[in-house]
Amino acid sequence: MLPQEMVDLGSRRSTIRELFEYGKQRAAVVGPENVYDFSIGNPNVPAPECVTESIYRHLGRDPAALHGYTSAQGDYGVRKALAESLNRRFHQEFRAENLYLTVGAAASLSIALHAICEAGDEVVVFAPYFPEYSVFVSAAGAKLVEVPPRCEDFQIDFDVLAAHVTPKTRAVLINSPNNPSGVVYSKETAEKLAALLKERSAHYGHPIYLISDEPYREIVYGAETPFWTSYYSDTVVCYSYSKSLSLPGERIGYVLVPDGAADSKDLYHAVCGAGRYLGYVCAPSLFQYVIADCDGATSDLSIYRRNRDLLYHGLVDAGFSCVKPEGAFYLFPRALEADANGFCERAKKYDLLIVPGDAFGCPGHVRISYCVSTEQIERALPAFRKLAAEYR
Amino acid sequence: MLPQEMVDLGSRRSTIRELFEYGKQRAAVVGPENVYDFSIGNPNVPAPECVTESIYRHLGRDPAALHGYTSAQGDYGVRKALAESLNRRFHQEFRAENLYLTVGAAASLSIALHAICEAGDEVVVFAPYFPEYSVFVSAAGAKLVEVPPRCEDFQIDFDVLAAHVTPKTRAVLINSPNNPSGVVYSKETAEKLAALLKERSAHYGHPIYLISDEPYREIVYGAETPFWTSYYSDTVVCYSYSKSLSLPGERIGYVLVPDGAADSKDLYHAVCGAGRYLGYVCAPSLFQYVIADCDGATSDLSIYRRNRDLLYHGLVDAGFSCVKPEGAFYLFPRALEADANGFCERAKKYDLLIVPGDAFGCPGHVRISYCVSTEQIERALPAFRKLAAEYR
Repeated sequence: MLPQEMVDLGSRRSTIRELFEYGKQRAAVVGPENVYDFSIGNPNVPAPECVTESIYRHLGRDPAALHGYTSAQGDYGVRKALAESLNRRFHQEFRAENLYLTVGAAASLSIALHAICEAGDEVVVFAPYFPEYSVFVSAAGAKLVEVPPRCEDFQIDFDVLAAHVTPKTRAVLINSPNNPSGVVYSKETAEKLAALLKERSAHYGHPIYLISDEPYREIVYGAETPFWTSYYSDTVVCYSYSKSLSLPGERIGYVLVPDGAADSKDLYHAVCGAGRYLGYVCAPSLFQYVIADCDGATSDLSIYRRNRDLLYHGLVDAGFSCVKPEGAFYLFPRALEADANGFCERAKKYDLLIVPGDAFGCPGHVRISYCVSTEQIERALPAFRKLAAEYR
Repeated sequence: MLPQEMVDLGSRRSTIRELFEYGKQRAAVVGPENVYDFSIGNPNVPAPECVTESIYRHLGRDPAALHGYTSAQGDYGVRKALAESLNRRFHQEFRAENLYLTVGAAASLSIALHAICEAGDEVVVFAPYFPEYSVFVSAAGAKLVEVPPRCEDFQIDFDVLAAHVTPKTRAVLINSPNNPSGVVYSKETAEKLAALLKERSAHYGHPIYLISDEPYREIVYGAETPFWTSYYSDTVVCYSYSKSLSLPGERIGYVLVPDGAADSKDLYHAVCGAGRYLGYVCAPSLFQYVIADCDGATSDLSIYRRNRDLLYHGLVDAGFSCVKPEGAFYLFPRALEADANGFCERAKKYDLLIVPGDAFGCPGHVRISYCVSTEQIERALPAFRKLAAEYR
């Protein structure tokens, strides 16, 4: 009698969440220090000092105002501060009116997709991609169209992409720096992608929106990340502070609708409407004020870089093959057997919790989150070596 | 080309939000002290001390853990503490597993409705009711069936209700203490409602769920509020701390699925699934820990009681007729002309911002939120008298 889709979604947890819960249970048995949980993108590097300072400062304000409702789009002053910060950092001309604050990245994406898509529309994604995309796209009534991965570098193969864009394509969803591959799209890629989408939009007579999911925007190790609205005006940016400020539990982010996007005003209205439709009222107020103070700051990225180098070299030495990531905090090596699920099951013997690439639309690979303590990586490397030895 | 329903929802703001925004603009012109904004249920009484104390205490913890992801259902320890608090206060036997933490009341309701309803199902509500109910019900694919108000006391007329419950009825949605009438349902009402729903569930051969939306549960002035799961086992409780702890901007609440509810396990799964489907990941983490510390506490209710008495008597003296509210922080008097919209427009002349009852499915009445400073009420009473004088 209950809606089966909801029962299924709730009882068949995502592979990642499943492993996360397994890790908690396992830690209770063997001790947390003996579980090498690389399953979840839960930053271990603490929020930067400015976050805690900002919280303390705001706690001095009138609590009724501090914890009160803001406008549904978010506090005006906060949005203005964020627009100014983006303008400074990326040479843009945004205003408060371009921003709609959300309860984190999943909300940003769900709202953007509901604002853009109608039943029957297609949304193109590039494998490997974050598994929940399929839930968000289908909830918006659209169909997820998967561009198969180019496993040698996980960059966009434009010929393959071109074959997947059709008159039904309403949006292309990108995620760079990428979860799970850590790959960062270059400016040249941005130019090529923009050219393709402009050509196809003109050809089909309707805009194809680019939805840029960029919670890892600032988490890069030297690579330059293009700011997408500069390359393609029909871009909607979905952002979250979960990773850059290490605040994933606090649920705070935004949707950005630039003035230059097709039907910009209606699109912004649709974003506000989708927020109402999905039961959002406003983003958490205290953390709205915090991000206004801290936008552009990041947690200590040198720790992630050290982790990346340690783990990447450790795995390559152990016999893994892996594209070296330029951003985010994931490695995405090939599994040592064709069946990544079987491989991840075998890894559990060593209390190594890693996620099969199948969940990301990319079988034969595994995701290893290195937003963990450096010590965990040091302690886990012998286990990875033992695991690899089983395959020799 | 964009989904018209979303554009409309975003451009035609709710009457209440519209007035709230108008009030902000008007305050910028004539000064905030000269705008008598009674439009929104934004508590003016600050959060109780325990909230600020709890925040400071948790800020001493490891920030990566404090601000990290919790389980999708909410932190286990938090849910356990909330269950124990509910058990103490209401003589129940809940466990952590009965609770799913949410991003406030709108999320609780949206999730509960998506978990329960399928296309074509009917959800019965009692006028007057919170206008966003119609958005939440329709987003869940269901049809809102409105039981017309009994204006002499805003209690349930069971004969009228009986005529609105059909084989298609999947849920009955109640809100006591009520926004906007302030009316509280008694234990006798709970018994009668339970009897009717049991009889009809048996007759139709499927459970009719009672969705109890109770953000005002603790905001009562002497009246006893029944705890609904004790009366009717197929009850799903939707709670929010927005009003009791004066934290509406922070977005924190829960859905409670008791073990005794029909298909309880699947229903809880469906709640988890609906959360995923709507783009929720977890409730804001810092405030999860705060509510575990503060559940059962309230803001200083004596201020609301004083406001109610002052405003109620002031309005009655000025010639208004009004059911005296026993809970929440709203008065819902008759407008002084048949067209409440026209009446509220006229009230704007005196910078009195009040909400027409039409939005609540109850024309001819107006909602006046008294969760404002007592001084605002004192200053506004002459304006209400002048407004009333226009109708003599």
